[in-house]
Amino acid sequence: MGRVTERRRVIRIRDGAVSTRPDTLVTEEPLEIRLNGKPLAITMRTPGDDFALAAGFLVSEGVLGRADELANIVYCAGATEDGSNTYNVVDVKLAPGVPVPDITLERNVYTTSSCGLCGKASLDAVRTTARWRLGDGEDGTDGADGGGGSPLRIEPETLSMLPDRLRAAQRVFDRTGGLHAAGLFTPDGELLDLREDVGRHNAVDKLVGRALQQGLLPLSGSVLMVSGRASFELAQKAVMAGIPVLAAVSAPSSLAVDLAAETGLTLVGFLRGTSMNVYAGEHRLALRTAVGGA
Amino acid sequence: MGRVTERRRVIRIRDGAVSTRPDTLVTEEPLEIRLNGKPLAITMRTPGDDFALAAGFLVSEGVLGRADELANIVYCAGATEDGSNTYNVVDVKLAPGVPVPDITLERNVYTTSSCGLCGKASLDAVRTTARWRLGDGEDGTDGADGGGGSPLRIEPETLSMLPDRLRAAQRVFDRTGGLHAAGLFTPDGELLDLREDVGRHNAVDKLVGRALQQGLLPLSGSVLMVSGRASFELAQKAVMAGIPVLAAVSAPSSLAVDLAAETGLTLVGFLRGTSMNVYAGEHRLALRTAVGGA
Repeated sequence: MGRVTERRRVIRIRDGAVSTRPDTLVTEEPLEIRLNGKPLAITMRTPGDDFALAAGFLVSEGVLGRADELANIVYCAGATEDGSNTYNVVDVKLAPGVPVPDITLERNVYTTSSCGLCGKASLDAVRTTARWRLGDGEDGTDGADGGGGSPLRIEPETLSMLPDRLRAAQRVFDRTGGLHAAGLFTPDGELLDLREDVGRHNAVDKLVGRALQQGLLPLSGSVLMVSGRASFELAQKAVMAGIPVLAAVSAPSSLAVDLAAETGLTLVGFLRGTSMNVYAGEHRLALRTAVGGA
Repeated sequence: MGRVTERRRVIRIRDGAVSTRPDTLVTEEPLEIRLNGKPLAITMRTPGDDFALAAGFLVSEGVLGRADELANIVYCAGATEDGSNTYNVVDVKLAPGVPVPDITLERNVYTTSSCGLCGKASLDAVRTTARWRLGDGEDGTDGADGGGGSPLRIEPETLSMLPDRLRAAQRVFDRTGGLHAAGLFTPDGELLDLREDVGRHNAVDKLVGRALQQGLLPLSGSVLMVSGRASFELAQKAVMAGIPVLAAVSAPSSLAVDLAAETGLTLVGFLRGTSMNVYAGEHRLALRTAVGGA
């Protein structure tokens, strides 16, 4: 697409010295996601991987879980008066027989119909929508459909390597400083996939959507690493994709920690150098020393 | 409310040493905003200043522009089965005679009915919704309703002081590392107001909403400083509140720069130490040296 970055004129001020030069900026444009022809959501995103973004968004919303539930995704032409294609509107067609949920975007995973709006309701909504259960920590399994997979264990030393590997693999960040990154790693620290976007939730949706298209859901053997903070929304996306470990460079929110504790997600924050904080799911970390009070 | 932060148990790993201790996290909970009793939007936010958040959100959407257009804002009890008040649902009542727009959240400022979805449409939507025009740069005025106010000029040296002042005034960040900040400053660098939130757009809405409640819109004599990046959404909120200068610690997006150029907003990015990049509206900066090519 060639629209990941754009050039703009910028005036640089450095210690009082003023100069003008071209600068590279991350591209931000709206994407409308339609489901079977009906408008569902608009997100501000960096163009590229739009089909994956749409598919991953629908995984996060509980609509898609398997590649064969997806018939196809197309760019919609004719959205403008002159009939041209802006490549900013995609339509996702579900396979025959796949139920089309009555989704209004704001009301879906943040709330349920039976209860009022609160953090608890948000947690309940994820739990009732999720297709897979993360391992419950009793036997350490992270298999699909309630067990049977091999247990995921990761060394803290491996986690410590992920931020540098994520940064090294980011192609656009160094030029613009404006992109969030989400990386999918093996428990051995091998990078499986990396996506960048002006919105951190979009970067995760792109990762998850590509995995869906490749028939890889649930991602029960993977570790998700994000460049910023760990909000409820990112923890939700990990749970909905069956990812058992979410690691973030910065702080988690209270609701992200609560969701992790309730679903069995391993949540690591402030992952910097050889330091990290583990907020939930510590059974997946191979800790050499016993956990003691401070 | 006392819910800005919460305590959770955390396992700290530092160079292989493992310990357990309580940690302070930023609170994240959903807030549903209703307009005249009808659900309009849900945002994940840090509790506190909820009425200001709702009011500011409606300024950003072009619904509110003056304090007298707002009848009142209340927390809705009875949203749960047992009738208790979660303090997570607010209802905004407009004053009699104020038109209630037919808003669906995603479709409002990002698009217009007459054209397809693209960056241009997003810019057009802001321009047609905005109540005030920022100074056009011809005479430097930033008055309301098309002119008449005094010109806003700011020294680069003053801008350079804002990040430290914003950080010094942040009360919760040091404890949680999880909050975005938005500060409103005079052109002399005096801090007028500061709001923090787990979502950067919420922090700005809280600032703008309080200004509306105090009858201070348009904020034509103010500078908005944000702790992170400058997305289209943040630039839009500045324009909708009549704020002529937006400064950010990190990178802007292409669409934020385009919106700034089209509306006359001064957009400063990478504001760090004595360095900064000016992407649009440089006529408001008191530059001592001529702008030359590099």
